[in-house]
Amino acid sequence: MSTNTAPNHHPAPEAEESRLPLWQVVAALLDSESPQDALAYLAEMAAPDVAEVLAQLKRDDRQQLIGLYGDQLDPEVLAELDDTIRDEVLEHLTPRQVADAVVQLESDDALAVIEDLDEEEQQQVLAALPAYERIILQESLNFPEDSAGRLMRREVMPMPEHWTIGQARLALQSWDEMPDQFYEIVVVNPSHHPIGILPLAQLLKSKPSKQLREVMEEEFHPIPVLQDQEEVAQTFRRYSLVSAPVVDSDNRLVGTITVDDVVHVLQAEATEDVLRLASAGESIWGAGLINTARPRFIWLTINLATAVLASWVISLFEQTLQKVIALAVLMPIVAGMGGNAGTQTLAVAVRGLATRLLGSGSQGRFVAKELLVALINGIMLGGMIGLFSGLWYQNITLGIVMGSAMLVNLVAASLAGTLIPLGLARVKIDPAISSGVFVTTVTDVVGFMSFLGFATLALKWLA
Amino acid sequence: MSTNTAPNHHPAPEAEESRLPLWQVVAALLDSESPQDALAYLAEMAAPDVAEVLAQLKRDDRQQLIGLYGDQLDPEVLAELDDTIRDEVLEHLTPRQVADAVVQLESDDALAVIEDLDEEEQQQVLAALPAYERIILQESLNFPEDSAGRLMRREVMPMPEHWTIGQARLALQSWDEMPDQFYEIVVVNPSHHPIGILPLAQLLKSKPSKQLREVMEEEFHPIPVLQDQEEVAQTFRRYSLVSAPVVDSDNRLVGTITVDDVVHVLQAEATEDVLRLASAGESIWGAGLINTARPRFIWLTINLATAVLASWVISLFEQTLQKVIALAVLMPIVAGMGGNAGTQTLAVAVRGLATRLLGSGSQGRFVAKELLVALINGIMLGGMIGLFSGLWYQNITLGIVMGSAMLVNLVAASLAGTLIPLGLARVKIDPAISSGVFVTTVTDVVGFMSFLGFATLALKWLA
Repeated sequence: MSTNTAPNHHPAPEAEESRLPLWQVVAALLDSESPQDALAYLAEMAAPDVAEVLAQLKRDDRQQLIGLYGDQLDPEVLAELDDTIRDEVLEHLTPRQVADAVVQLESDDALAVIEDLDEEEQQQVLAALPAYERIILQESLNFPEDSAGRLMRREVMPMPEHWTIGQARLALQSWDEMPDQFYEIVVVNPSHHPIGILPLAQLLKSKPSKQLREVMEEEFHPIPVLQDQEEVAQTFRRYSLVSAPVVDSDNRLVGTITVDDVVHVLQAEATEDVLRLASAGESIWGAGLINTARPRFIWLTINLATAVLASWVISLFEQTLQKVIALAVLMPIVAGMGGNAGTQTLAVAVRGLATRLLGSGSQGRFVAKELLVALINGIMLGGMIGLFSGLWYQNITLGIVMGSAMLVNLVAASLAGTLIPLGLARVKIDPAISSGVFVTTVTDVVGFMSFLGFATLALKWLA
Repeated sequence: MSTNTAPNHHPAPEAEESRLPLWQVVAALLDSESPQDALAYLAEMAAPDVAEVLAQLKRDDRQQLIGLYGDQLDPEVLAELDDTIRDEVLEHLTPRQVADAVVQLESDDALAVIEDLDEEEQQQVLAALPAYERIILQESLNFPEDSAGRLMRREVMPMPEHWTIGQARLALQSWDEMPDQFYEIVVVNPSHHPIGILPLAQLLKSKPSKQLREVMEEEFHPIPVLQDQEEVAQTFRRYSLVSAPVVDSDNRLVGTITVDDVVHVLQAEATEDVLRLASAGESIWGAGLINTARPRFIWLTINLATAVLASWVISLFEQTLQKVIALAVLMPIVAGMGGNAGTQTLAVAVRGLATRLLGSGSQGRFVAKELLVALINGIMLGGMIGLFSGLWYQNITLGIVMGSAMLVNLVAASLAGTLIPLGLARVKIDPAISSGVFVTTVTDVVGFMSFLGFATLALKWLA
């Protein structure tokens, strides 16, 4: 078997590409005469790889594999799984078995496993845990979802400022529960307030006789325990942090957050932004057919309602359309271009807000700049399409109507694409989730209204 | 002044929100009688904060501040700046001054500063550097943009496997150029191939007499120096890494990448995806009016061309439209809903490809699932809008035409929304950059064609 010759570090991707994806190998083994071989094969893999195989297998194969594992699945794999897949695995386990797995995890991973259980299962698992783990987890569950409190690990070893480097080294050597991801010591004062941090590299380099307060870094970035995880991620990114102390409202140390969690948050938030902007629901990978279709159906229904509104606007101009059928041919151009321009502006606004580049101080300038961009592009594109339409239908008036409607709609698009997301952000609604619908409603309605309205006026003047 | 009382760690955001943004304070100081105060105020700030102030100031204020700094700007700030702003700063410096700043930076930051200079300036700065720094940077510049080679830091201290923990500790204590971000030792064999890593926490905990080969972690993830940075970021995310050795094509250690660079890559790639999906250009923040308007204009022009194509499709059915003006009122609904559904599918595909969840093995299942989702939603939404249109215009045939066109267009949307990004990814074109235009072109053309085509057929049958 290939497991004997496989190098124990991750092979270079070139080598990997030419091989079957892991999940296909596992699927083939599950299909073979000795499906148990799949477990042996997976035993060589890192937890994230096993989690990926579980996510990529077809549902039947996954169920078979979970059945083979019984309660023997590495708890680390549980922590790596997506919510929907984890639910499938947990259904096969008793609350006691889940509790046994949870005990083996660090507190942040343990929390990730139990926070998505339904209320009753959660209580059963908590009841089966030893007292200390139960209390820690219950406390963490009290923090709001997506807050720093949910991301942090509780296993910290704060050190008093008067300790020497030598004492600190000794203390670490006897710290049995040192977490896998551990990079910095938090130095605290007698009130348990963090007053500095000491990277391990510094601990190694400093003279053993020095006191921590002499060598610690005094510039550091404590995270309030209730802070939103997006905010946490932006602090980590901005200051290139690998870990940060988490403090409660009295500024006491209650945990630490490490960068690996932040990397997951950044990726998840980016995916969320993209999917929300496209109104495609949220969690998709591993979701069943119905759970994939439902959120999209809901958003498409909302879009349908706004499309009907736009149609109603068109219907107001049926008489005009009847007279000049060319208007029916051209009107989707005005509406569509407005939608595209609005989406451009919206994307910039949403990413600006998400990355904190678009702060409260610069929003006025942002709107003004977008308005200018719309005027420039509106004049150029309006001119182009006006000329084109005028030539196509040999009708100067039609060209003028088309060009002016385009300019008006691009300006409307820039206002909708800036003011709607900024307004939503101000009232604490995620601008990614619903801006798109509002913006295209505005550009559809303004597009049809201006184009057909100008045309109706032109007909009257000309008549 | 507030700098005396300010705590030297980052204040909690609650406190910050009630204060003026930093850049407004700086702008006010620049406007005052002693603009030099702005420098004193900024001297207290961390480099990322100074960089942000520079980015957020109005251009005039920024120029004034850069003038005040002269060659006194902290090189770390240079490394933190966005390309466009950095260019403005560098214009005020001679090649020698830039070289003096670059020498003070670690190799990855130094590279970031000089890689965006134009060819001639780059050569001048390189010529002004000491030989060692020049060679290192020239070599790095030979790696492709966005490759691991551009991200990595060259300052590494590889350690032979036969060294003891005690020797390793001594070596680190005398390593003068230890980088700020240093978390793991890379253990190498005599051919300079990495064979394991040793986190600093493990170095602290292990007995001094142990050999590195006995305590090192043999499961690690070397990064090929030519690997694309997106791929690097996904490896870091997946295995929760803080740093990883970078190897050349002979598997020799050439540098290390740390997670802080990866966090920047993840955020930048996410922003790029969002902006590209919306055809909004790429770098926007700090770009001037013209540089903001130009890429959008180009994309809108391409969109305009496809919109004209869709209009041409409509014009084929002018006679049908003339007979039943209701068709003009309803047709944007079919096209628009197709566009929305296609965008939903496209967003899922693009994020799936970006996060490597949509591997080559699972693409067939993905397309099949999206097709099923489209059928389910198409039948439901087609039924709804068919009923509505039939009732609105008191015309069953119109309702049937509307409903069937909707179903057809949603199915077309699911095919376009999956096959186009997957096809582009296969030929190594970023699916985010151009899929949107293709997908909406398909849904516009299929939407108008099916709706007006069915209507024309119905008219013939009924006639």
